[in-house]
Amino acid sequence: MKFIFGKKLVDQNEVAIGYNDLALLRGYGLFDFFRYVNFQPLFIDDHLERLYRSADRLRLRCPIGRRQLKMLIHRMIRENGMKDGAVRMILTGGYTENAWSISRPNFYATNEPVRFPDAHHYEKGIKLLSESYLRDVPDVKTINYLMGIYRQPELDAAGAFDLLFHQDGRISELTRSNFYIVDEGGTIKTPVRDILQGVTRKHLLKFASEHYPVMETDITLNDLKTVKEAFITGTTKKVLAVRQVDDRVIGEGQPGPVTLDLMKRFELYCKAWTDKEDSFN
Amino acid sequence: MKFIFGKKLVDQNEVAIGYNDLALLRGYGLFDFFRYVNFQPLFIDDHLERLYRSADRLRLRCPIGRRQLKMLIHRMIRENGMKDGAVRMILTGGYTENAWSISRPNFYATNEPVRFPDAHHYEKGIKLLSESYLRDVPDVKTINYLMGIYRQPELDAAGAFDLLFHQDGRISELTRSNFYIVDEGGTIKTPVRDILQGVTRKHLLKFASEHYPVMETDITLNDLKTVKEAFITGTTKKVLAVRQVDDRVIGEGQPGPVTLDLMKRFELYCKAWTDKEDSFN
Repeated sequence: MKFIFGKKLVDQNEVAIGYNDLALLRGYGLFDFFRYVNFQPLFIDDHLERLYRSADRLRLRCPIGRRQLKMLIHRMIRENGMKDGAVRMILTGGYTENAWSISRPNFYATNEPVRFPDAHHYEKGIKLLSESYLRDVPDVKTINYLMGIYRQPELDAAGAFDLLFHQDGRISELTRSNFYIVDEGGTIKTPVRDILQGVTRKHLLKFASEHYPVMETDITLNDLKTVKEAFITGTTKKVLAVRQVDDRVIGEGQPGPVTLDLMKRFELYCKAWTDKEDSFN
Repeated sequence: MKFIFGKKLVDQNEVAIGYNDLALLRGYGLFDFFRYVNFQPLFIDDHLERLYRSADRLRLRCPIGRRQLKMLIHRMIRENGMKDGAVRMILTGGYTENAWSISRPNFYATNEPVRFPDAHHYEKGIKLLSESYLRDVPDVKTINYLMGIYRQPELDAAGAFDLLFHQDGRISELTRSNFYIVDEGGTIKTPVRDILQGVTRKHLLKFASEHYPVMETDITLNDLKTVKEAFITGTTKKVLAVRQVDDRVIGEGQPGPVTLDLMKRFELYCKAWTDKEDSFN
């Protein structure tokens, strides 16, 4: 497998990071991740825009420019010959002189298969556990996922799919997904603050608003008592229904009609996107 | 320079971590750090105990046992010939199959010079900026220092030394140090919850309690209005006075008599420690 390291395509075994990178010593770094279908990346420009914007926020200068990176990604996935898959791009704090200061960042991009949730999650909806937590610099896709991995045994024990983060009851997001409800009046609502600006979220809000009332606003755990549906979105989740949060069953306890409709519409939206002209042009 | 990698002493350039370690992909890992004087480690058993306890908490199995590691550290600092210095030990989440699951951890230990704060910080005391923040799994020395590094430009602009973390006004700790006040009655108080169990803190509380009333309890930002002194401790800080938090001047705005006394006593305590029989025996 060929991976990108700095400005070059190299063998995957050549991608290694020295002991004093700030990502290893201090967890300082960011990433982005997109999938592609039949060699056609989905929403790549959105992901690259977020990558470079996140880099600015963390004061990390990506060693490869956007246009060159896009071309190299194209070459990587073509040469690797994996028809459908995903690309993960990592930007680290770089080799630090004093175990604290930012340096020249290391950048690499890997090519991997995509893993979607099991079919039964799509059919029955998922259970979430609420967790009082706010991600560090939440609008940046930092590499800090410590809380999610730390709590994984509790999720497994509870038969839950993921954590639902909130602060004093105000819901923000999941470890790796955005959150939505369908309220009693049929409006799709999604948290507006302290979230990652998800790329799937951006596109979902766009096409959903052509068919439903949509609102970005605060949502609380208390609101879940009366909502009719809840769902999440993410690059590897697409649209996935939520049937339960802690002990609280959402609506009918199964994927609702709005969620099911959005699941179908999203598949069509993605197909239209990847079927259109080569997005590398 | 020789470093420890896994169970072996290797050249420092051989210490590199592959692209799919959970520390790089997800910031999942922990570390510990101690200093040594004249080849004699300070409080090494406390640091090793915390390292292995932290590993248990994060479900990471250190690939080298405690006794073997201690011997290898001894060999490393002897062979490197740096008389005074520090050892940093990193334990990562390991090479992950799915960018999420814990695997066999990577472990390495490096040997580096110690950098203490500038003399003027010890003479005049430091300024802190308060920050509403709670470290993830605060009793574990995780590698997540994103917030501290992210806020560094604000510290520099304000002439501040570090952040003082609190939740709704209840103080916990600094990015890399424990916090203490001397109250109006002359009692030394230090936060008891949501903190790293500092090794310097442990020893300071021990010897300070022979001379002063000492209490582990909640402390709020509001309490700083009336305290007589404040100070911090840490492996590379030793005992360091705090003269100001945000716009609030602490006591007389300079190192107070209790802090100055503890600074001296700590130097003597460390000297007695490293002068005694070889702590590797």
